Amino acid sequence: MRLDQIAETLGARLVMPAGAPPPAAVEIEGVAPLDRAGPRQLSFLASAGFARHLPATRAAAVILAAESDACPVPQLVHPKPYWAFARVSQLFWQPPRPATGVDERAWVAADAELGEEVAIAPFAYVGPGARLGDRVALFPGAYVGAGAVVGEDSVLRANAVVEEGVRVGARALIHAGAVLGGDGFGFADGEGEIAKIPQTGSVELGDDVEVGANSSVDRGALEDTLIGSDTKLDSLVQVGHGARVGHHARLCAFSAIAGSARLGNWVIIAGHGGVNNQCELPDGSTLAAMSAITKTVREPGQYAGFPAVPAAEWRKTVAASRRLPQLLERVRRLEARLAELEGGG
Amino acid sequence: MRLDQIAETLGARLVMPAGAPPPAAVEIEGVAPLDRAGPRQLSFLASAGFARHLPATRAAAVILAAESDACPVPQLVHPKPYWAFARVSQLFWQPPRPATGVDERAWVAADAELGEEVAIAPFAYVGPGARLGDRVALFPGAYVGAGAVVGEDSVLRANAVVEEGVRVGARALIHAGAVLGGDGFGFADGEGEIAKIPQTGSVELGDDVEVGANSSVDRGALEDTLIGSDTKLDSLVQVGHGARVGHHARLCAFSAIAGSARLGNWVIIAGHGGVNNQCELPDGSTLAAMSAITKTVREPGQYAGFPAVPAAEWRKTVAASRRLPQLLERVRRLEARLAELEGGG
Amino acid sequence: MRLDQIAETLGARLVMPAGAPPPAAVEIEGVAPLDRAGPRQLSFLASAGFARHLPATRAAAVILAAESDACPVPQLVHPKPYWAFARVSQLFWQPPRPATGVDERAWVAADAELGEEVAIAPFAYVGPGARLGDRVALFPGAYVGAGAVVGEDSVLRANAVVEEGVRVGARALIHAGAVLGGDGFGFADGEGEIAKIPQTGSVELGDDVEVGANSSVDRGALEDTLIGSDTKLDSLVQVGHGARVGHHARLCAFSAIAGSARLGNWVIIAGHGGVNNQCELPDGSTLAAMSAITKTVREPGQYAGFPAVPAAEWRKTVAASRRLPQLLERVRRLEARLAELEGGG
Repeated sequence: MRLDQIAETLGARLVMPAGAPPPAAVEIEGVAPLDRAGPRQLSFLASAGFARHLPATRAAAVILAAESDACPVPQLVHPKPYWAFARVSQLFWQPPRPATGVDERAWVAADAELGEEVAIAPFAYVGPGARLGDRVALFPGAYVGAGAVVGEDSVLRANAVVEEGVRVGARALIHAGAVLGGDGFGFADGEGEIAKIPQTGSVELGDDVEVGANSSVDRGALEDTLIGSDTKLDSLVQVGHGARVGHHARLCAFSAIAGSARLGNWVIIAGHGGVNNQCELPDGSTLAAMSAITKTVREPGQYAGFPAVPAAEWRKTVAASRRLPQLLERVRRLEARLAELEGGG
Repeated sequence: MRLDQIAETLGARLVMPAGAPPPAAVEIEGVAPLDRAGPRQLSFLASAGFARHLPATRAAAVILAAESDACPVPQLVHPKPYWAFARVSQLFWQPPRPATGVDERAWVAADAELGEEVAIAPFAYVGPGARLGDRVALFPGAYVGAGAVVGEDSVLRANAVVEEGVRVGARALIHAGAVLGGDGFGFADGEGEIAKIPQTGSVELGDDVEVGANSSVDRGALEDTLIGSDTKLDSLVQVGHGARVGHHARLCAFSAIAGSARLGNWVIIAGHGGVNNQCELPDGSTLAAMSAITKTVREPGQYAGFPAVPAAEWRKTVAASRRLPQLLERVRRLEARLAELEGGG
Repeated sequence: MRLDQIAETLGARLVMPAGAPPPAAVEIEGVAPLDRAGPRQLSFLASAGFARHLPATRAAAVILAAESDACPVPQLVHPKPYWAFARVSQLFWQPPRPATGVDERAWVAADAELGEEVAIAPFAYVGPGARLGDRVALFPGAYVGAGAVVGEDSVLRANAVVEEGVRVGARALIHAGAVLGGDGFGFADGEGEIAKIPQTGSVELGDDVEVGANSSVDRGALEDTLIGSDTKLDSLVQVGHGARVGHHARLCAFSAIAGSARLGNWVIIAGHGGVNNQCELPDGSTLAAMSAITKTVREPGQYAGFPAVPAAEWRKTVAASRRLPQLLERVRRLEARLAELEGGG
């Protein structure tokens, strides 16, 4: 791909060094980090920490937020250099895909509906009444249960499981071992036994959702569990029954969204984070690692701690707690000095 | 099903509104929440928060703990309305199940013992010497290792794994991707290498156990890992080698029961909870989210924090810690005032 | 195996009780705990807590760190009794293995390279260009993607997944459901959408690595994720893209190593532990349960807390925080007494 085409695709401003060949003569074949990129690779500068690699870069061109005199090669100036880099990377990326067609060792129900150019690998399974959109790819061991729907261009990697009746939107990427639609964890205490609440709801994923390896999104008890479009789940994430996660959200590894929780759009939950049953977290909020929302939050913002409080407050509490042993000693001394004063009074 | 039959099954007291048709004339076809139930659906009121939906409900009948004048429809009065609702829901629930018989694309060892009416889907595997009870169902990709035993009416969903020699009781529900009998995490430090402790024990599950998607119960090193009857594991739970979990326990997502830990009956471990190696937690105890038992607990009760303490104590500490930054300031002021007094004395 | 042979294999000193038969006459058939071992089983004493079982043991012999008068049976004195026990256990351990050969229900690409005596079970999959070393074993549903390499004597248990291009060393044990090479969690915020950063790196595991059930090691974005030789991952562990874990490390259940983190050799991360993006933790360091490294650590040592601090410091802070409610009361009293003094001055 030519450099001028890439600039146009990105909407980036091209700054060429003196004496450089014209952008239309610069052929790009891939991407690489600043310090490793060669003369046919594009690179990027997204954080100040890497600026020291700029003067010596051998990249074909560099994407950056502001024109820099230190850059010896063509510059692609773009307000969001990391995002622009992501888009360029996608141009050169060819994700793996099983052979088009239905492998004779796959199992596809007679009444399943298959779109055009689906790719169904050996040992993949498509249940009765399931529907796969055009170009859907199922890797070996992938499972699509009865009546489930998988939208066009979606990919289920090896051993991924889409349970009965679950609906997956277009362009989803469901990684190996992920399970969509396992039963929610709903039980009622009786005398001497626990009664299972049948989980009769389902799971619905919007478009452009990614679900990491071995993650689990449980089906709802009476209503559906919903994952909004463009939302991304890391590996080993758990979303409980009836939870609703908005659009463009990101849930990091080991985050747990409990039953009937409500997360807004653009929410980020860091690793080991948790949101308790029926709690809400509004649009654009973030929850720090190892922190848990234990009651509904109305004000968008950054939250941290267990139970979670505004992150700035949490940082103050943590800093203060570091001084606790010393504080105990200071209070001990105060008590002694006061006793002396009182005795002397 | 008729309303009078349901009342009898539950042992609930029927309260009919004036002018209502006789209970034997009311046909119930399913369940739904109070605000969405239609005239052929049963609903329930289990927490005060939903009582506002009672006067306008269109449900065929409502299960509740105490007779209510606000209820416009027939009432099923039962001391445990949520449990009663669970039981009714089960009456209308038909969990999915592969076709009865052994699919020709399954693999079953010649010497495996199969009960009556088993349902073994394509790509399921039953190893040498394994035994499946009557009506056991294996979904696609489910694996039963050599010599393993699965009790009657148990279900292994897609890609669930029961390793060699593991014993699963009756009516188990093992969700997709769950693994029973992976090796415990046992190693001994040597000079320049770590030596694996062969995990020669097994795993045994009682009856009526449910294991959530992608959970893992490890086999023991020298003794078996035990999960008591009627115990329920959420998705993504880990139980370590040689642990013993009692009956009717519930382990929520990301809870980790370490090696040789002992949990009593009716124990509840909330999300991200942990119980350390060889620690015990007595009958009926609960552990809060993101908390860890780090030494054996003798007194049944509610525990929280890391390391865990009685929950009431933990709540006081958390509340006090919120006041820490302010406390530091108060002590600073005390010191200044005292210095002034001393200087002036 | 004869007792004298075992002593020689371990490099242990044999101490025979008076009147015992010669070591060459003592046949050992297995291992067991001190209180359960019979006269043909070897046992060990590795922690003081079990010493009470020594006088009554019926074991054929006991491995211990120092000769003991309380031991009624032959003693194998070794400085690392637990490690010595592990080595002996291995001698008697025969891990399960599919039948040698390629089952006709497996799927192996025409151009895959298979070593000698591989064992490939039904429903296992070996992609185009993949290479399996000698004696590699794939259990049912195991998946080896295109171009991936699995070193000699390595085992993939049921439904384990080795994604495209991933390289696994020799003697690896990859447990059921584990996924090596899922996409790293890399996204860039744009206007109104999140752009995926294609994860074009891979995963490389050294030799003698063990990966527990349902764990996930993500592939790198631009560079590879590396797991050093002899490193062990528990069940349900997550290693992020581009992370580098040294040799002989141990990561316990639910530990999360975030993107581009660097862990030294002999590092131990306890359950629910976390290491943040790009943070480093030096050789021989340990991180306590439910703790997280949030900035690079230079000094090897024991760390705990969130954010992690030296463990000794963390313990002091925890102990002090337990006294917080009481401390608040003491400060309240100080203020009152001081006000009285000041008023009276």
